[in-house]
Amino acid sequence: MVKSSKKGPRGRKRLGVWLIGARGGLATTLITGSLALAKRLRKPIGLLTETDFFEGFPFARFEDLVFGGHDIRDTTTRAAALEVGEDSGTIPPELVQVLGRDFRKVDKEIRPGILVNAGKAIRALADAEYLDEERSLVEMVDGLRSDLREFRESHNLDRVIVVNLGSTEPPLRLVGAHKKLARFEDALQSNKHKLVRPSLLYAYAAAKEGCPFIHFTPSEATLAPALVEAFAETGTPFMGRDGKTGETLVKSALAPMFKYRNLKVLSWQGYNLLGDRDGKVLSEAENLDSKIQTKDSLLQNILGYPLHTHVGIDYVPSLGDQKTAWDFIHFEGLLGHRMSMQFTWQGCDAVLAAPLVLDMVRLISHAASTGATGPQSWLACFFKRPFGQDEDDLHRQWHQLEEHAARMRSQL
Amino acid sequence: MVKSSKKGPRGRKRLGVWLIGARGGLATTLITGSLALAKRLRKPIGLLTETDFFEGFPFARFEDLVFGGHDIRDTTTRAAALEVGEDSGTIPPELVQVLGRDFRKVDKEIRPGILVNAGKAIRALADAEYLDEERSLVEMVDGLRSDLREFRESHNLDRVIVVNLGSTEPPLRLVGAHKKLARFEDALQSNKHKLVRPSLLYAYAAAKEGCPFIHFTPSEATLAPALVEAFAETGTPFMGRDGKTGETLVKSALAPMFKYRNLKVLSWQGYNLLGDRDGKVLSEAENLDSKIQTKDSLLQNILGYPLHTHVGIDYVPSLGDQKTAWDFIHFEGLLGHRMSMQFTWQGCDAVLAAPLVLDMVRLISHAASTGATGPQSWLACFFKRPFGQDEDDLHRQWHQLEEHAARMRSQL
Amino acid sequence: MVKSSKKGPRGRKRLGVWLIGARGGLATTLITGSLALAKRLRKPIGLLTETDFFEGFPFARFEDLVFGGHDIRDTTTRAAALEVGEDSGTIPPELVQVLGRDFRKVDKEIRPGILVNAGKAIRALADAEYLDEERSLVEMVDGLRSDLREFRESHNLDRVIVVNLGSTEPPLRLVGAHKKLARFEDALQSNKHKLVRPSLLYAYAAAKEGCPFIHFTPSEATLAPALVEAFAETGTPFMGRDGKTGETLVKSALAPMFKYRNLKVLSWQGYNLLGDRDGKVLSEAENLDSKIQTKDSLLQNILGYPLHTHVGIDYVPSLGDQKTAWDFIHFEGLLGHRMSMQFTWQGCDAVLAAPLVLDMVRLISHAASTGATGPQSWLACFFKRPFGQDEDDLHRQWHQLEEHAARMRSQL
Amino acid sequence: MVKSSKKGPRGRKRLGVWLIGARGGLATTLITGSLALAKRLRKPIGLLTETDFFEGFPFARFEDLVFGGHDIRDTTTRAAALEVGEDSGTIPPELVQVLGRDFRKVDKEIRPGILVNAGKAIRALADAEYLDEERSLVEMVDGLRSDLREFRESHNLDRVIVVNLGSTEPPLRLVGAHKKLARFEDALQSNKHKLVRPSLLYAYAAAKEGCPFIHFTPSEATLAPALVEAFAETGTPFMGRDGKTGETLVKSALAPMFKYRNLKVLSWQGYNLLGDRDGKVLSEAENLDSKIQTKDSLLQNILGYPLHTHVGIDYVPSLGDQKTAWDFIHFEGLLGHRMSMQFTWQGCDAVLAAPLVLDMVRLISHAASTGATGPQSWLACFFKRPFGQDEDDLHRQWHQLEEHAARMRSQL
Repeated sequence: MVKSSKKGPRGRKRLGVWLIGARGGLATTLITGSLALAKRLRKPIGLLTETDFFEGFPFARFEDLVFGGHDIRDTTTRAAALEVGEDSGTIPPELVQVLGRDFRKVDKEIRPGILVNAGKAIRALADAEYLDEERSLVEMVDGLRSDLREFRESHNLDRVIVVNLGSTEPPLRLVGAHKKLARFEDALQSNKHKLVRPSLLYAYAAAKEGCPFIHFTPSEATLAPALVEAFAETGTPFMGRDGKTGETLVKSALAPMFKYRNLKVLSWQGYNLLGDRDGKVLSEAENLDSKIQTKDSLLQNILGYPLHTHVGIDYVPSLGDQKTAWDFIHFEGLLGHRMSMQFTWQGCDAVLAAPLVLDMVRLISHAASTGATGPQSWLACFFKRPFGQDEDDLHRQWHQLEEHAARMRSQL
Repeated sequence: MVKSSKKGPRGRKRLGVWLIGARGGLATTLITGSLALAKRLRKPIGLLTETDFFEGFPFARFEDLVFGGHDIRDTTTRAAALEVGEDSGTIPPELVQVLGRDFRKVDKEIRPGILVNAGKAIRALADAEYLDEERSLVEMVDGLRSDLREFRESHNLDRVIVVNLGSTEPPLRLVGAHKKLARFEDALQSNKHKLVRPSLLYAYAAAKEGCPFIHFTPSEATLAPALVEAFAETGTPFMGRDGKTGETLVKSALAPMFKYRNLKVLSWQGYNLLGDRDGKVLSEAENLDSKIQTKDSLLQNILGYPLHTHVGIDYVPSLGDQKTAWDFIHFEGLLGHRMSMQFTWQGCDAVLAAPLVLDMVRLISHAASTGATGPQSWLACFFKRPFGQDEDDLHRQWHQLEEHAARMRSQL
Repeated sequence: MVKSSKKGPRGRKRLGVWLIGARGGLATTLITGSLALAKRLRKPIGLLTETDFFEGFPFARFEDLVFGGHDIRDTTTRAAALEVGEDSGTIPPELVQVLGRDFRKVDKEIRPGILVNAGKAIRALADAEYLDEERSLVEMVDGLRSDLREFRESHNLDRVIVVNLGSTEPPLRLVGAHKKLARFEDALQSNKHKLVRPSLLYAYAAAKEGCPFIHFTPSEATLAPALVEAFAETGTPFMGRDGKTGETLVKSALAPMFKYRNLKVLSWQGYNLLGDRDGKVLSEAENLDSKIQTKDSLLQNILGYPLHTHVGIDYVPSLGDQKTAWDFIHFEGLLGHRMSMQFTWQGCDAVLAAPLVLDMVRLISHAASTGATGPQSWLACFFKRPFGQDEDDLHRQWHQLEEHAARMRSQL
Repeated sequence: MVKSSKKGPRGRKRLGVWLIGARGGLATTLITGSLALAKRLRKPIGLLTETDFFEGFPFARFEDLVFGGHDIRDTTTRAAALEVGEDSGTIPPELVQVLGRDFRKVDKEIRPGILVNAGKAIRALADAEYLDEERSLVEMVDGLRSDLREFRESHNLDRVIVVNLGSTEPPLRLVGAHKKLARFEDALQSNKHKLVRPSLLYAYAAAKEGCPFIHFTPSEATLAPALVEAFAETGTPFMGRDGKTGETLVKSALAPMFKYRNLKVLSWQGYNLLGDRDGKVLSEAENLDSKIQTKDSLLQNILGYPLHTHVGIDYVPSLGDQKTAWDFIHFEGLLGHRMSMQFTWQGCDAVLAAPLVLDMVRLISHAASTGATGPQSWLACFFKRPFGQDEDDLHRQWHQLEEHAARMRSQL
């Protein structure tokens, strides 16, 4: 009886969505958006899985998604939604009002996250009670896994997708312990804090529990070989790194144009201005390093030659999540003549990112249901640095998605 | 003996390039660029046929191109090149100096063009002696054809490519005479001036002489059904309309990005600022109409839904050929949130267009040598409104080019 | 007893503010802003009269302002405020909620406006019942005057400031009847509809009632010599034309810089994109003419030489009142070298304009209290085409304001 | 006899212009521009002293200027001019040709500069032979002074203006030795290299020789109190710091607009992209510090409140001297509504700066001839951080210039 109540309307099984960073602006926007879509309060703009392109796919419906997650701050989804609304104007208070009950359900499923070796910028965001963790690494992993299991069982979910939306961590130098699963597990046993970051433990817990994993942030180490081996061991699909939303999206769409015309790009300067927690964490130099690494290799990859590039990220508190990016492109044409192009992108990052996550939750869940395992490289177009493949050209990535979707469709 | 002297080095046959509008800024830049490449004075930037993409294709070499053409102004290529250099800084006086002899050879091959029903803006550019044409349409066509034949024969050319680089003509309402070749030829016989524009007679002459034809300007009527039939009759390949260089190029590269993300474009406003003859002709409302028609259908085609668009073209004399375009894109994402992107493109139109023409001259010549006839739709990526196909997405057009190039390569 | 209740707190007399176009977005924003300031719900950003610059001046307090006005649409201030909030995000629903009672008080003071010879774009905005006006011009004027008197008397107001915020009217060719007051009054008597626009009658009514008049819209004829004579006759101060908010404000701030450096501006192209009723009315060519006239003379005035300029205004419905303007400035420096500057202005017009109106209401009321009559040219910095003076340089205008303020201060 | 040949036409005395950094792009552009103006080959665009504003002032004519200077690189003005022309397109080869003889005259007057404690970025630009300086500080000063005297005497010049156009030096911590002239001279005697930079010695030499001094670069220490005392001692006028050309010029012109409207600027982000030697020197962090200090205080000064600002300077080699700056301004209006403005400035720095220097050479020479001594604060509008005054508002600075010019005019 209770079980059946856990099913969605018409008896469909529900899908768990477990968000690392569940109190953050992106997660809050995502949860709000999904609930608003479930209630038909908003149109599904920004979602590819709602277009003709994927018509007929048996995706989880928004009303069948169940949200939970980890975070290092104590607040409510309602308070977080009001804050997002005030900062960026994306969530009006009326909508928060209407979704109050649903928000409270989500709140019940949010568990304390971990901060082991997270770096000072992230620790500065955390509530005090999270800071003094005394558990060993093994105990932490056990705790995370038990959170996931409990979530799955209490809602009678067939599948839980884990999505990493946590803040960008400082880079972690990869050593032997990150190269083989056995050695990584030794390091956990030996409680070697310096060898992990929170995201590694989240990913490891997801892998062990067989939860498909979407690594939406730039942290490089999260998908180190040892972790990839862990996903392989349980036959679990995963994909990453770093959701492609604003400036990089435009870059990867525009750069091929210069290639098609054999126009020589001399310099491509990019400046990203953003406020909010994301901007604050990135204003710490060590965290910024992770991000810049993710963004900077793309142009050379697409154009096929080295060029002068720059990716700046500056913290501008007044902007909140209204990211503003300016790119300047200096290029050469016939007769050595120099020309330029510049663009300004003004977008709300959470509004742009949330539908990508929802799309991927649906797509990776569908893929898992058809037996997919390991890296899902056909999802490359959603990422700044797609795992396991070198293609950075947005249009080629799209082509891959089209072809994969056609294959999946033929097997429906 | 004389014949062999007409061959290029190593006995290769030379390729004729016949430019309608041979005194214009684009033709002058193209000729200068080609000569500079032939002499290794500049790098082949902007030319796709010089990249790895087309490695191994037996394209005509720059030193094997022979230029000629029609124009309605009396000047020299040298004077035109100095003017272009002064206006846009693309051609330094030193380069004009070095190419003096070659320019004089080109000058010998430029013949008087026609102005029949060309509209007042174009007539205003013409030298006085061209204005009072007393020949019948049939005599004009015969004159054009005989110019082409004489050019081919005197240089012992296997093939002459005709490229229309003339000013944008006012639109022509298509009637019965444009729909069937027989009726078109009746209209010529009856000397019905109102039913033609210069570009129709140039195209007709090219078709009758079996010269592959590249229609690089927007005029719609030039490739009317009667003309297409004329090309079919002689088994001659052709392609058009309107070379895609600046703002439209960027548009067709960027718009797919919004589709990939299901971001709803609400408005796309485009403003083009340009000086020089092109800008002056377009500042006449009737000529502008032709141009706007060419540009405006593209976004709806790519995005798949109607949207608010605007394409403005303003004459700003001080800019010369340094075209400056600003586009503003207003779009909606999840939760109905509105965002925007804007770009400014600052490019020299002739420098951007010239290599496209050179690329297409080589490509269509190669295609003709392998028996291609009729519309060459695989060249779509070079045009604003590719003849005979609906694809406006630059990346899909590029994909078509890649596939066709692969096919051609397999037959090398 | 009743009278004393009409006084503000501490017995201060209240000031009437009569808005032509009282249901429009600007009036609604202005009323909402003023009420929010009166209740200390918002900070007085955008108001010069709230800065140190005017410290100590006995301006009317926001809580002492009483609003009324004319309009041609039937709605409520509450509904208008909600609409503004939805369109531009400037007025949150919570604020509308809090101000509900005050809004209803305003609604009681809004009277039907007139549409005589208003042009089709403005008539298209009007509610049906306003369209079939059968009164003579004299009856209309009497009606307007009686509205003003009634407003003043019922609230026991010492002074009522009339502000024209109506839509931009089509230009009116000035003839003899506009040059002398006597002849204008003859035309009214003779009921010559074609010789007036609504704004002329509003201005005339204000003059006759001795109400200081602020002409915030571009219509040229409103301050024709006959009307100026009417204001002189009653010793009433007035000022206009066309509030300077966005692109023109920036223009008048930037152009002097080029003069200071003797950089020669070759071309200055300006493009204004806006939605909402303002944009819709301006998308009618005849109304646009009025606006363009107002904007275009400025640059030559400041720079002192003729130059190529363009001011475009395009209707982009999705923008609402979020006006976006792009200006491109092409200029020449030493050695004839050409350079450029461009700017994009993204501002909410009503939010920018409302405080100017409130500032001027206070300033002209204070001036009237000290005996000022006729054109108040020291208010030039608030207008695109300040009446009765040629100075378009924003900084010189500011200097004038500073000097006048110092004089007024010395007489406090 | 020889002497009279040193006079300009009509017996006018000639004016010496001694440039520190005489081989640099700015000095080369300035010399070329001045010579071209003297020969009437170009129009005096960019020069304020050539406008009506200064009509009737007995300024030195361009044909009466004699150039000389110091530099740390061995080349010719001709070679430098060709390099500038190639990089930025400002100086065509034809002009270099025409000015060949004049350039050679300049070359004869250029003397080896000094590199004492100049920092590694500047030393990296120097020719090898300049690097191993063995002279004491006193010997260096004597050398510089003797260069100035010899220049004056050999050309029979009444006056020599010294202009510092050298690269931006790393900041120098000011200590006691910089506060009193006597202590500074002790430090020179004691040969304390660490207490000087080249610009201090140049300024000191100018002061001792009574040469009016224009400090056109940002280095802070150059006008330290001890040096100011040196200028006072010889009654020599001087002014600085850091010529105001591009982004800062626009900033100081625009910021007052926000003040006039009481719009609250929340953030003002500025990004400067530049190539050439200037960009390279600034890409060294220590030299950049000097520059940023100069630019960053301005906005708070004008607006009157603290705000979030950022001034970035990035080295983009392909740009050469074609400086491109993007500024993003985030501001708040009534009802707390947030809006934005952005501008892109694309200017050739040398072309913008050269006329300022020529203007100031004329103006300070004229002032000296009327007995002016010490800081010339009425020249503030030409500088980013005008010495001895706090006014950063370009328009107030202009007003000061207007008033001073009026006073000077009344004494003509």
